[in-house]
Amino acid sequence: MAADFSTAHLIAIDWGTSRLRAWLVDAGGKELDERESDEGIGALAGGHEAAFEEITAGWPKVPAILAGMIGSRQGWREAAYVPCPAAVSHLAERLLRFRTAAGQDIAIVPGLMADAPERDGDVIRGEETQLIGLSDSEPDFAGVAILPGTHSKWAAMDRGTVRTFQTFISGELFALLAHQSFLRHSVAEGIEDLAAVPDFTLAVTRIVEDRLPFAAALFSVRTRYLLADTPRDQNLAYLSGLVIGGEIAAALQAGLLKPDAPVRIIASTGLANAYRAALAVAKVDAEVRDGGKLVLTGLMHIARTIGWIKGKAA
Amino acid sequence: MAADFSTAHLIAIDWGTSRLRAWLVDAGGKELDERESDEGIGALAGGHEAAFEEITAGWPKVPAILAGMIGSRQGWREAAYVPCPAAVSHLAERLLRFRTAAGQDIAIVPGLMADAPERDGDVIRGEETQLIGLSDSEPDFAGVAILPGTHSKWAAMDRGTVRTFQTFISGELFALLAHQSFLRHSVAEGIEDLAAVPDFTLAVTRIVEDRLPFAAALFSVRTRYLLADTPRDQNLAYLSGLVIGGEIAAALQAGLLKPDAPVRIIASTGLANAYRAALAVAKVDAEVRDGGKLVLTGLMHIARTIGWIKGKAA
Repeated sequence: MAADFSTAHLIAIDWGTSRLRAWLVDAGGKELDERESDEGIGALAGGHEAAFEEITAGWPKVPAILAGMIGSRQGWREAAYVPCPAAVSHLAERLLRFRTAAGQDIAIVPGLMADAPERDGDVIRGEETQLIGLSDSEPDFAGVAILPGTHSKWAAMDRGTVRTFQTFISGELFALLAHQSFLRHSVAEGIEDLAAVPDFTLAVTRIVEDRLPFAAALFSVRTRYLLADTPRDQNLAYLSGLVIGGEIAAALQAGLLKPDAPVRIIASTGLANAYRAALAVAKVDAEVRDGGKLVLTGLMHIARTIGWIKGKAA
Repeated sequence: MAADFSTAHLIAIDWGTSRLRAWLVDAGGKELDERESDEGIGALAGGHEAAFEEITAGWPKVPAILAGMIGSRQGWREAAYVPCPAAVSHLAERLLRFRTAAGQDIAIVPGLMADAPERDGDVIRGEETQLIGLSDSEPDFAGVAILPGTHSKWAAMDRGTVRTFQTFISGELFALLAHQSFLRHSVAEGIEDLAAVPDFTLAVTRIVEDRLPFAAALFSVRTRYLLADTPRDQNLAYLSGLVIGGEIAAALQAGLLKPDAPVRIIASTGLANAYRAALAVAKVDAEVRDGGKLVLTGLMHIARTIGWIKGKAA
């Protein structure tokens, strides 16, 4: 039996560097279909329109709203960064809108730009839509939203407005140190639950509480293995604690994180647990939100704002 | 004409992970011959005695003193770390001495171990001999000796005694970030004179003077390229400044570096210039010493201490 897509009103796509995820939804935002592919923009040399036609093949030609690296210089078309502070209305005004050769309406959500002269600014592309998704479910949230990952993003949120944000390359730094540096001989390849290992908390405590500088702490991963025969899985947790601790210490120092501010961690369970445990060392109590559907929620929120689907406006 | 090695008294070898450098000297320390090879211990799976026989082939079977990773667990034989504070007399007492199958006397200089509970200790192997070499030419030196490189070593020296030291993995971290991370797209592969680029000093200033945390600064290498079109060679200098600045800020915070303490940088010209320029930002005036011959000086100093060659004792 063929699927019934007659009520379809919108296509929403999260199109990053390595992955592409597309949803077909009705006027009320109900999901009718979902598709995934590994044709992220990193895997494409041009041909974005063809890739779009492929992932949406068989779906009605309803308007499509897209977020992520698809709006970058290396993407389909470049959607210029919107300066912070930015609310959903600013993003909606600056959507990059065009029509495909097949006559389908497209809107690409622009990234955000932060004014941070001490580090020559900052940029986000894709996560702004997750932040809109967070505000959709918690319109009054005022505090810090953390999106950990390869490049962690910390956003200062104020009732739907992204005031400013900061990027830390912690995930990438951890992977380089654990797998590419000489420290790889002193750590395990991977373990189940980093945050449950006491060495993780020890490392965070040294960096965040005892203020051991991150750059001064890295060699200790080697000496722990060499002088104290620390098992490699415990040592991997220690290295992770140093990196996440370094991120938290920097956020505290920058005034981005305050012990009494409400914090949301938007991530999958394992990573969220690690960040929550690390933040607890800094006496910060964070709540976890599943990041899986937040992009879709954000895309629908923006689509409602421009009248592409029904329901509450922004 | 065959070389005249009849006055030979000592073989001195600097045997590291990737290189091997051997000298034949007379009783007064005069060099009679010098050889190099890439048979570092990283290239050898056992067979160290054969490699020794090969590099010293044709030389008289005089006693040989060796320093570097050759004394590690992966080396010829393991010379246990000597705890700091340590003077040349401590190293001389703890030399690992044995005789080869061919009847030649061997002494391997042990590495040093620092008691640093906040980072589970620290170790040096090879650089201790350069520090002895520095003390040989400046017996009254009291201050900090910096040996920059893949793994930078900072030693607190006090008239021939290594009081304590600290390792920073700056060189390796820089190489990983510049060549393996996503930042590689934003920086040049290499440039001539890092320290002469204003972006280098800007980065050091931000980290050392403005106290921008190292972990918070890394993404700026990307945004400078993306938002300000900073040329990639300038951006490489900026990244280098962040890494070296992070090292200096950490040394200042640890109390290892004090603005008024005498500082020696032991390195080749390019790297030495970069560290000297970076230290100048911290108002530290450092003198540069060529590291090339310091190992040999150190090895001869230790050999004199145990009576293997003549001249002033330690």
